[in-house]
Amino acid sequence: MSVSFAVGFEDIRAAAGLLQGVANNTPVLTSRTLDMRANARVYCKCESFQRTGAFKFRGAYNALGRVPEATREVLTFSSGNHAQAVALAGSLLDIQPTIIMPRDAPEVKRKATAAYGANIIPYDRSETTREVLAQQLARERGIPIIPPYDHPHIIAGQGTAALELLQSQPSIEVLLVPCGGGGLLSGTTLAARAIQPDIRVIGVEPATANDAALSFKSGTLHTVHNPQTIADGARTPSLGALTFPIIRALAHDIVVVSEDAIIGAMQFLWERMKLVVEPTGALGVAALLSGVISADRKNVGVIISGGNVDFGQAPAWSKPT
Amino acid sequence: MSVSFAVGFEDIRAAAGLLQGVANNTPVLTSRTLDMRANARVYCKCESFQRTGAFKFRGAYNALGRVPEATREVLTFSSGNHAQAVALAGSLLDIQPTIIMPRDAPEVKRKATAAYGANIIPYDRSETTREVLAQQLARERGIPIIPPYDHPHIIAGQGTAALELLQSQPSIEVLLVPCGGGGLLSGTTLAARAIQPDIRVIGVEPATANDAALSFKSGTLHTVHNPQTIADGARTPSLGALTFPIIRALAHDIVVVSEDAIIGAMQFLWERMKLVVEPTGALGVAALLSGVISADRKNVGVIISGGNVDFGQAPAWSKPT
Repeated sequence: MSVSFAVGFEDIRAAAGLLQGVANNTPVLTSRTLDMRANARVYCKCESFQRTGAFKFRGAYNALGRVPEATREVLTFSSGNHAQAVALAGSLLDIQPTIIMPRDAPEVKRKATAAYGANIIPYDRSETTREVLAQQLARERGIPIIPPYDHPHIIAGQGTAALELLQSQPSIEVLLVPCGGGGLLSGTTLAARAIQPDIRVIGVEPATANDAALSFKSGTLHTVHNPQTIADGARTPSLGALTFPIIRALAHDIVVVSEDAIIGAMQFLWERMKLVVEPTGALGVAALLSGVISADRKNVGVIISGGNVDFGQAPAWSKPT
Repeated sequence: MSVSFAVGFEDIRAAAGLLQGVANNTPVLTSRTLDMRANARVYCKCESFQRTGAFKFRGAYNALGRVPEATREVLTFSSGNHAQAVALAGSLLDIQPTIIMPRDAPEVKRKATAAYGANIIPYDRSETTREVLAQQLARERGIPIIPPYDHPHIIAGQGTAALELLQSQPSIEVLLVPCGGGGLLSGTTLAARAIQPDIRVIGVEPATANDAALSFKSGTLHTVHNPQTIADGARTPSLGALTFPIIRALAHDIVVVSEDAIIGAMQFLWERMKLVVEPTGALGVAALLSGVISADRKNVGVIISGGNVDFGQAPAWSKPT
C-alpha cells in the first residue's frame, strides 16, 4: 500500500512480540448451528477470553509497554474495558495509572479497576468532559495520556487479534469487527489487508450509534451524541483522527444492526455456543444472524470483542424463544 | 490392573475412534485468577462446548453407533442432557429414538429434544417410574434401551473426554469430575488411570445428593430419593450396577460441595472465565474454590460437564459480590 498511516503492519508485528506470553492467544470457536444459520463457515475469535475480558488489554499493554523508561505514571479516561485493561497493564509493568471515570460509572467496574491498583478520579459528566479534564491533569502532572483508541500503540495492539486469527485460519475471506471509536477496526484492517490484500473487513455498529457508518460512506467525520444502545463499547461519539483515515481507506464497509439483533445474537451465543458475550462483542454475530451480511457460504471471521457482563444482568435482555 | 470391569481402556480408545470428526475435541481453558484462588494450575476441559452442550453426546453416539445393523430404533429415559444427546446421535446415525420424559419436564428441553426428530413419550412421575415404563415398552416393541449411564458403551464414550484432556495435558496429577449416576466418573477413572496409574481422580457431588460419596466410603450402594439440589445432572438416586464397582476401585475419593459453593462457582465461571456452565458442570470448580479440595500447587484437571442453562435463568442464582 502506498498510502501512509499513523500505524503500519510492522507496528502490529512488534506489538505481537511484546504481547507474547502476556496476552492470551484467545481460542477460535466454531458452531455447526451458527454455520447453518449464517450460511457460512464462521470462525469466532473470542476476545472475551482475553485478560480483563476484552481485546482492550492488547492495546493497553502495548501502549504502556512503550512509554519512555522514566515514565512511571499514565493517565487515561474510560468507564469501561479500557480502564480495566490499563489498570492491569500498569500493575504488570509497574506503571501507576490514573483513570478518570464518571461519578456514575457502575460500581462493579469502578471496583474491578481499583482492584488492579489504579487511582480513580471521579468527575461529573454535567460539569466537564473527560478529554478536557485529562488534558488539564496531564499538563499539570507532566504525564502521558493513553486514550482508549486514537493512539498508534493502541491501534497496533488491537491489530494483534486479527493477526492471530488469520495465522490460525488463513482461509478467511470476510472479517466482521465491532466498531466504536475504531481502534479495533483500524488495527484489524491494517493487519488483515497486509496479510491478505483481498480480504473484506466489515465494521459493525449499532443502528442507533451509526456515526462510523455515516463517516465511512460520506468521507466526513460524523458525530452522534449520547447514542442509546445496549452496546456500551460502541457509544463513542465518533471515530478518531487516526482511526478514521485507516478505516476509510482499508475497510470494505460498515454496516449497522438493530438492538433486537444484538440481543438475539447474545442469546444465541449464550444458549448455543455457551459463551458469555457483552452486547458490543455480539455485533458481528448479530450482523450474520439478522441477514445484514449475506455470507454466501464464505469463510467468515468474527471478532467477539469482549465478555464483560455482570452475572444476573442477562434477564433484562432475555426474551422468549 | 488385574480386576476386570464391564468396560476397559480399549473400549474407550475404540469410542474415541468412532467419535473422531463427529464429537468436538473440546477446548481446555485456563485462568490466572482460578489458578491463584485454587493455588494450583487448573485445566478446564469444557464439555459445555460439546455438541448438544454436554459430554452426554459422547456416550450416546458411541452407544447408538454400536447397536446391531438391523436395529433402527432405540428407547431411552431422560429429561435432561442425555435425551438431547440420544436425539442428535439418532438423527446422525439414522436411528429413531423414543424418549420417555416426565410430563413436567421443562418445555425448553422437550422442544430441543423434539427438534432433533425424537419421539417423546410423556409419563406421570406419580404413577410409574421411567425405568419400569422403559422396560415395558422395550419388551413390547423389541427395541434396545440406551440408559443414561449404566451401560458399557455409554461409560466408554464418556471416558473419551478424559482421554483427550490427558493427551493434551499429560502433567495433570488430580482430576475433578462431577458425579451423578457415575457414567462420566467411571469412564474418566478408567481412561485416566490407564494412561497415568498414579493420577487421583476425585468425584464431586452436591452435599444434598451425597449418595455416591456414601457408597464410595461404605462400599455399599446408597440411594438418595429426590435430592434437592440445583445441580440437576446429579439428582440421580444412586450410582449404577456397572459404574459403582469401577468408581469404588479406581477413584481416589468422592467429595461434596454446598449449593452456595455451586452457585459461587457458576458465578466465577461466568464473570471471570466468560463461560456459561450449568450447575452440575460447575461442581469441580466449586470444590476447588470452596477449599474442599486442597490443590497444593498441583496440576489439576477439571471436567466442566455441560452448559445447558437458559438465557435469563442466571438471575435466580445471582448473589451480590
